[in-house]
Amino acid sequence: MAAPYTLILLRHGSSEWNEKNLFTGWVDVRLSETGVAEAKRAGELLRDSGLAPDVLHTSVLTRAIQTANYALDVADRLWIPVERSWRLNERHYGALQGLDKAETLEKFGPEQFQLWRRSFDVPPPPLPDDSEFSQVGDPRYAGLGDELPRTECLKDVIERMLPYWESDITRDLADGKTVLVTAHGNSLRALVKHLDGISDEDIAGLNIPTGIPLVYKLGEDFTPLEPSYYLDPEAAAAGAAAVAAQGKK
Amino acid sequence: MAAPYTLILLRHGSSEWNEKNLFTGWVDVRLSETGVAEAKRAGELLRDSGLAPDVLHTSVLTRAIQTANYALDVADRLWIPVERSWRLNERHYGALQGLDKAETLEKFGPEQFQLWRRSFDVPPPPLPDDSEFSQVGDPRYAGLGDELPRTECLKDVIERMLPYWESDITRDLADGKTVLVTAHGNSLRALVKHLDGISDEDIAGLNIPTGIPLVYKLGEDFTPLEPSYYLDPEAAAAGAAAVAAQGKK
Repeated sequence: MAAPYTLILLRHGSSEWNEKNLFTGWVDVRLSETGVAEAKRAGELLRDSGLAPDVLHTSVLTRAIQTANYALDVADRLWIPVERSWRLNERHYGALQGLDKAETLEKFGPEQFQLWRRSFDVPPPPLPDDSEFSQVGDPRYAGLGDELPRTECLKDVIERMLPYWESDITRDLADGKTVLVTAHGNSLRALVKHLDGISDEDIAGLNIPTGIPLVYKLGEDFTPLEPSYYLDPEAAAAGAAAVAAQGKK
Repeated sequence: MAAPYTLILLRHGSSEWNEKNLFTGWVDVRLSETGVAEAKRAGELLRDSGLAPDVLHTSVLTRAIQTANYALDVADRLWIPVERSWRLNERHYGALQGLDKAETLEKFGPEQFQLWRRSFDVPPPPLPDDSEFSQVGDPRYAGLGDELPRTECLKDVIERMLPYWESDITRDLADGKTVLVTAHGNSLRALVKHLDGISDEDIAGLNIPTGIPLVYKLGEDFTPLEPSYYLDPEAAAAGAAAVAAQGKK
């Protein structure tokens, strides 16, 4: 099928740990009630936009899958094919997983805190395998072996996400399918960085709001033909500002 | 992987049209509140059984997908891979789709009624393409072309279901995966008929209750090594009796 291709990115809504202000990463927490409402609202935006997804790609984390399920239910598209991959997971937050963001900020200071949150290539310390927040032994990652991360910086996320973009997502786009990707703050930042050619420095300033579909029109080479847009631009601007303020008490 | 293989069949819970006592078939109605509760209970039964599904196969009808989503959410297995196929759909009920079961029984008499409901090889009259209950033009069936049914008897269901069993479901079983199939009264009767070698005559008397996982242990040749069993046998017996009584006022 000929371009333009339509790609829709959707960051999951607020989770139980977002509301507790904890670093989550690969810990498999559920959506909060607010997050469920955000997902349903995303479904309304999709439905009203007329941009009917033909196929869904999600991470293997429950909060992204719940988001897709609620949104597609509202949009009357539960029946579309779905593919899941750990490559769309949130950034692994290493030893920060399970820690309180405000306490971490206070304990380590704003410089170290911001480095861990937004540095392009400095990962937090690795999560010990005997941590209660470790994914070692989780059956959904049984096939990964030594590839299972213990910590990641954004650069690591890009490196493990891009092969999935290139093999699986672009294959569906090339088939002319409208593709919905429901994923996470950092896996989507990684994808947006790639699509929009954002520099390693500038990506630190990019915040993707939760629960608002972001639409790309792509050409034959899978690069944007025009600027991407949110289906609810006002809510998106407010949401991005809220993400940027995270960690502050 | 070596046998025994584990196959779990789950019929969707009560739908909005079950409660209105209408013939549904391929009309894409949603679960009722009761059906949602049944699906969640099925998830509890799965969780408590320790039979963790590794992969899900569903029809492309919303009520089967909702059932899987609710059940797997409770069982903490939302992240498993999923494959959907129209070949697992409910029997197409032809011109009966949208009709009231009790009125149909009254109008056509018990003999014709039972023939349409349980005859092995006599389908109801075909559904006209201009019916509001037709699936012509539904994007989820766009690839079917002339294969799109306008009515089906159980024999037709078996013929379109078995290729999917043989190509897709047995492939996952042979990989050693515990397979969950969430589908419909008649697509599951078709599969049970095949697995248990039930005759064309005897299958009329088999009723599969809603919302109760049915477990098969299969050998290398994908035939049962022992009798199948429901995870809640008492509720299953009561449920099967209720299905058998359907259509009676």
